[in-house]
Amino acid sequence: MAVYTEVLDEALAAFLAAYEIGDLLSYKGIAEGVENTNFILHTTTGSYILTLYEKRVKEGDLPFFLGLMQHLAANGLACPQPIRTRDGATLGRLCGRPAVIVSFLEGVSVRRPGVRHCRALGAALAGLHAAGADFPMQRPNALSVAGWRPLFEAAEAQADRVASGLAARTRADLTLLEESWPQDLPGGVIHADLFTDNVFFLGDEVSGLIDFYFACTDAFAYDLAICLNAWCFEADYAFNRTKGQAMIAAYQAVRPLEPREVEALPLLARGAALRFMLTRLVDWLNVPPGALVKPKDPLEYDRRLAFHRKVAAAEEYGWSPVTG
Amino acid sequence: MAVYTEVLDEALAAFLAAYEIGDLLSYKGIAEGVENTNFILHTTTGSYILTLYEKRVKEGDLPFFLGLMQHLAANGLACPQPIRTRDGATLGRLCGRPAVIVSFLEGVSVRRPGVRHCRALGAALAGLHAAGADFPMQRPNALSVAGWRPLFEAAEAQADRVASGLAARTRADLTLLEESWPQDLPGGVIHADLFTDNVFFLGDEVSGLIDFYFACTDAFAYDLAICLNAWCFEADYAFNRTKGQAMIAAYQAVRPLEPREVEALPLLARGAALRFMLTRLVDWLNVPPGALVKPKDPLEYDRRLAFHRKVAAAEEYGWSPVTG
Repeated sequence: MAVYTEVLDEALAAFLAAYEIGDLLSYKGIAEGVENTNFILHTTTGSYILTLYEKRVKEGDLPFFLGLMQHLAANGLACPQPIRTRDGATLGRLCGRPAVIVSFLEGVSVRRPGVRHCRALGAALAGLHAAGADFPMQRPNALSVAGWRPLFEAAEAQADRVASGLAARTRADLTLLEESWPQDLPGGVIHADLFTDNVFFLGDEVSGLIDFYFACTDAFAYDLAICLNAWCFEADYAFNRTKGQAMIAAYQAVRPLEPREVEALPLLARGAALRFMLTRLVDWLNVPPGALVKPKDPLEYDRRLAFHRKVAAAEEYGWSPVTG
Repeated sequence: MAVYTEVLDEALAAFLAAYEIGDLLSYKGIAEGVENTNFILHTTTGSYILTLYEKRVKEGDLPFFLGLMQHLAANGLACPQPIRTRDGATLGRLCGRPAVIVSFLEGVSVRRPGVRHCRALGAALAGLHAAGADFPMQRPNALSVAGWRPLFEAAEAQADRVASGLAARTRADLTLLEESWPQDLPGGVIHADLFTDNVFFLGDEVSGLIDFYFACTDAFAYDLAICLNAWCFEADYAFNRTKGQAMIAAYQAVRPLEPREVEALPLLARGAALRFMLTRLVDWLNVPPGALVKPKDPLEYDRRLAFHRKVAAAEEYGWSPVTG
């Protein structure tokens, strides 16, 4: 959410000389993205995003991310499309950082999604899973069940500073999920971070999905479980079953869930909540003194976990069998 | 240089309903401007800048700034033009802040201006002075000579922590300038902060001037003196007379300097350098602990002052009589 690297006009002009995107009209650093530096470019051919990858994104993962965005865009998904240089490259270097130019997507992120947004998101998520189905590269999900215990151990000793009893209930969840985590579900490329700020709308239609820097190879239903967590809880942490119903039904209109996915959904939703609680908790406990950016509150996901623990079946998330 | 106020999609939609600028396509917070929050908007009619004024800009000054930008744009100057609502207002409120929408200017700021840029800037500055000539409102320059002693007194005790001897030589400059500051020079609206980041270029042409939030009523030649300081020194603090010559000649091609302005130029340039040294010094000494933004270095202007102290006549800045 900041401009980490200053890019001078001369350096940018030299970088752009390798592309055929017209003449530069303007560029502005924008407050967007995980932890990269992003600029909006206007050129005589349109708008683009220039991204410089800062240290949190591993350079070795970039061919997966860029290849994936190209593959998805080629398969009709509205997502940022890496632009090639005259020499055919998508990844360059600018100011000492790996850098890419991608197409600009119009659209607005919806902070408080309604039922219609959840419905549109369900369809878009299924579209993403379909568009990525034949993508040949693999990237293990480093933030799936095997990655949670190290996160917990890094935070365990101080967890009760954040909320009373947090360490104990998190430990119990973690043990349960490690023992019962569903294996061998239908899977492929998932977004794994499809929060509302990564989805653009024009009116009630999804106009684009962005920020594929957590994308990986994992169970499709886990991606849906992440979206249920991110989109279907109200401000008071009540789960809105109408929103869940709209999202799941729209997803199933493209790709019906298999019975084993339906059965696994409560555990997947609980695991997804634990994953975001843990990464937020570690960030929360490691804020550098004097930092201006307040990290996201882990307790938002502790509250969601309280709901998930009581769920017995997918119906409570709004799932119902595909009919007709 | 940051997004200070978060603007949610619903609040923005309600705000935009008062305007006739088409449908919103996207908005992004940009890292630009003094201490305001700025967004680039794309709508179905084009690009715009949305500015929310944070506390450093006095609300009572906004009618001057907005009226000035309208006046200048109406007189053909390429500057942000405040957009009116259906009701004819330019100033609104968004998220509890005064807010305006202005036209978007394409162009790129040149970090290391060459002679050709200095020439173009000189012409643009004279164009600004001409376009503002019949602007009816007044705004005293709070950062002219009468404002310097309070700044100095706020910094005096700690100035030598920043550079040895800084307090003494600044005190001497200040006394001299207070005694001899030129009065009653030709004047009107000046920009008063026309640094390179406030000037956009497309190729070698100035495509726009922005950031009028220091604009005030003062001597035209003082504005030129600010530009000589901001544009014509090299990285080693040597004054580049070729650049000064290009800037002054281009200015004079539109508005020849009067003899009393030429005579005053060395004092004006010295005063301009002192003004920026003092505001930077105060900021430098008042960095909040843990701040991520490093303030600008006051010593860049202490070095310029060393040059100005030795200047005897305007010729040393590149001035020569208008010929032909």
